[in-house]
Amino acid sequence: MPTVERVARLPAGFVAAAGTAGIKASGRPALALIAATSGPIPAAAVTTPNAFAAAPVRLSRAHLARTYPAGSGGFGFARAIVSTSGCANAATGPAGDDDQRAVAEAVARALDAPVEEVLCLSTGVIGTRLPVDAVRAGIAALVPSIAGSDEALESAAIALMTTDTRAKVASAAVDLPGPDGAPCTVRVSGIAKGVGMIHPRMATMLAVLLTDADVGPETLAAMLRGSAARTWDQLTIDGDTSTNDTVLLLASGAAAAARVHPGTPAAAALAEVIEAVARDLARQQAADGEGATTLVTCAVTGAVDDAEARAVARAVAGSSLVKAAVHGRDPNWGRIAGAAGNARLADAPVLVAAGLDAAEAERRAGRAAALDPDRLRVRIAGHPVYDGSAGGPIHFDRGAARAAMESTEVVIELDLGLGPGTGEAFGCDLTETYVTENSEYTT
Amino acid sequence: MPTVERVARLPAGFVAAAGTAGIKASGRPALALIAATSGPIPAAAVTTPNAFAAAPVRLSRAHLARTYPAGSGGFGFARAIVSTSGCANAATGPAGDDDQRAVAEAVARALDAPVEEVLCLSTGVIGTRLPVDAVRAGIAALVPSIAGSDEALESAAIALMTTDTRAKVASAAVDLPGPDGAPCTVRVSGIAKGVGMIHPRMATMLAVLLTDADVGPETLAAMLRGSAARTWDQLTIDGDTSTNDTVLLLASGAAAAARVHPGTPAAAALAEVIEAVARDLARQQAADGEGATTLVTCAVTGAVDDAEARAVARAVAGSSLVKAAVHGRDPNWGRIAGAAGNARLADAPVLVAAGLDAAEAERRAGRAAALDPDRLRVRIAGHPVYDGSAGGPIHFDRGAARAAMESTEVVIELDLGLGPGTGEAFGCDLTETYVTENSEYTT
Repeated sequence: MPTVERVARLPAGFVAAAGTAGIKASGRPALALIAATSGPIPAAAVTTPNAFAAAPVRLSRAHLARTYPAGSGGFGFARAIVSTSGCANAATGPAGDDDQRAVAEAVARALDAPVEEVLCLSTGVIGTRLPVDAVRAGIAALVPSIAGSDEALESAAIALMTTDTRAKVASAAVDLPGPDGAPCTVRVSGIAKGVGMIHPRMATMLAVLLTDADVGPETLAAMLRGSAARTWDQLTIDGDTSTNDTVLLLASGAAAAARVHPGTPAAAALAEVIEAVARDLARQQAADGEGATTLVTCAVTGAVDDAEARAVARAVAGSSLVKAAVHGRDPNWGRIAGAAGNARLADAPVLVAAGLDAAEAERRAGRAAALDPDRLRVRIAGHPVYDGSAGGPIHFDRGAARAAMESTEVVIELDLGLGPGTGEAFGCDLTETYVTENSEYTT
Repeated sequence: MPTVERVARLPAGFVAAAGTAGIKASGRPALALIAATSGPIPAAAVTTPNAFAAAPVRLSRAHLARTYPAGSGGFGFARAIVSTSGCANAATGPAGDDDQRAVAEAVARALDAPVEEVLCLSTGVIGTRLPVDAVRAGIAALVPSIAGSDEALESAAIALMTTDTRAKVASAAVDLPGPDGAPCTVRVSGIAKGVGMIHPRMATMLAVLLTDADVGPETLAAMLRGSAARTWDQLTIDGDTSTNDTVLLLASGAAAAARVHPGTPAAAALAEVIEAVARDLARQQAADGEGATTLVTCAVTGAVDDAEARAVARAVAGSSLVKAAVHGRDPNWGRIAGAAGNARLADAPVLVAAGLDAAEAERRAGRAAALDPDRLRVRIAGHPVYDGSAGGPIHFDRGAARAAMESTEVVIELDLGLGPGTGEAFGCDLTETYVTENSEYTT
């Protein structure tokens, strides 16, 4: 795994800025703008499958399709990303679409770009309208402050936040061949937000990944889809897939590295570092789940294949009973086994993104994952607690296991004993605070 | 809908008894026995799809298959049902299978019946062994007290309880043609338990339905499968499908009514009353969900068909965010719309049980339900809050809506505006108490 730092480092070829937008009563930053310095650049998106996809999601899809009519959607070219937080602009009807277009047009005018080169993100309360005039004023106010600095990227991460307790940033670098064959450092950085209404199937929140590598839109889209299938699609906070979930990946090409072509070692190296940044952001999001005190990582080995392993990991990390047990530091392997027994494979698009061919994905989507109780082995926080091949429950030191669970991260390991498949999923404990926060948060 | 009373009325042809079994430290009843007075009678079962199906589930399936080798499993003949609560006998390996067989054999000996005529239910902590000697002693002790009384059935309902705060019983009656054509009253009664680890796909807990109608095993199985698809498969408490979920339906034929043949008006009348009892028990289970204060009913109309309606209802009733909002009496229609937008059709076996043909069920299983935001209408506790055809959010009196939600049942209505399909689902609010109970409940 490439080294990932939790700092904001703006890749070459980008500028950013953040400001207020008249949305948050607190007056906290609610508006972020990220732009390419050199005209439209390749962009890829993964967006929510929710039937109630919000106005910004629908507009971004339409814009990408317009900049790359030959594509299947999901990738194209973009010049800028504008994000508003505090108001989701979801379930707002045609008026919401008009509002979102007005925001995109304001950005386009400010940057002197065609409107279809502006992508939109939005997060917050569903069903309320964007205060368009205030957002427009906010855009006008922040354009002069736009800067190519790490601080600007960090301010954008802060402006994404809603009930997040901390901003999520991650950066990594990789040496790719330069045009002359000498190594050239390429950077991948990401910012994200997301604390509730987060669940697999793409899922899950907002994230923006930026790289200064030189990659075409289709290759970029494949890298993003594959990374998301193993990271964000494996992140679950509360089982709800939101109306606004969007991950964007933009490639400026501003590093001096050579063009990255699919199927090359450079493509593999870049994809790996993109996935490492995505995984780190997903872990940050899980750890900061609403009310969470503990990151729950479920690592599965021995599955028939990776798709099956990921299904089991997701089922365990997403079980309310397992999450509550982790909160109580209860090494309750019975609930883990029960949750694993309910595992279902992901939907076809996610399986395709993870590498299955379309027919196979179609055949297996949503099916029960293979599991043999007589082969399963379970460890909680390093303590073996169940071994199906040895009759099931293992006598273990409960006090020691509880003590090992007293950590900010609890790792649950399952070895299915069936094959070479591996996978992981990320979640958090279920706490009284989650309930309190979500009982009081008003429309 | 037939009238359902929440009282225990033992149908003719059955006896019951309950007692302790050395399982519960509290000394509360943990053992229930229900038997047919006239030898083996037709029986049908619906059991958990969990890969970790518990020893009692596996044994009951095997026994039914042995009494009806020509059947596809899931129905046959039975003489008795024995239930133990407090210990699930799940994930206990081969030793757990031996324990369960010993319990069934003790019942068979006491009743002088072949062991394969004994069906088993079990609920409680996963991964601990049954105290077989104590259970055997308990069986020996309660056999003399076995009685054909309503009180005996009620005592069996009480003995099913774990963290249930109240016993669940329901009874209804229907007039079917007697052998001479004159109306003859047939009774359907049920008992159930279930508070946590409850989620669609069969699901969900333990329930026993008894009738004194005269029905063959296959017809009985079809009636049970269809009823469960519209009731228990639509019940969700916490998204976890347990290892022990079992519903049994036994028909003694002891009423003087004529044999019920499939496709007749009598079969339709009996199926309707079975479903009414199942629905009432499912509603009692939802209302008594762990930590619950409020029954949440989601009623969907205007779906493309019933399968789609049920999918949307289930998604709304199962959303943690909707459940938390109900707890806070927040008329948060945005979360309802968001949850509806994530709805997925049930698995193929449930779709078949609900009436789709096998190929169609296979094709549609797990797919997204059809939803058009521009046609959706939502009402919370009787208050219209969203109308997609009128631009979306409706101005409504929030205080009045909150006041209407101050009830032991909150009904959420969605009209999808797409077709004639209807469906409902049952759940409960998500409370701090759910988290507290499940953080502290130890393996």
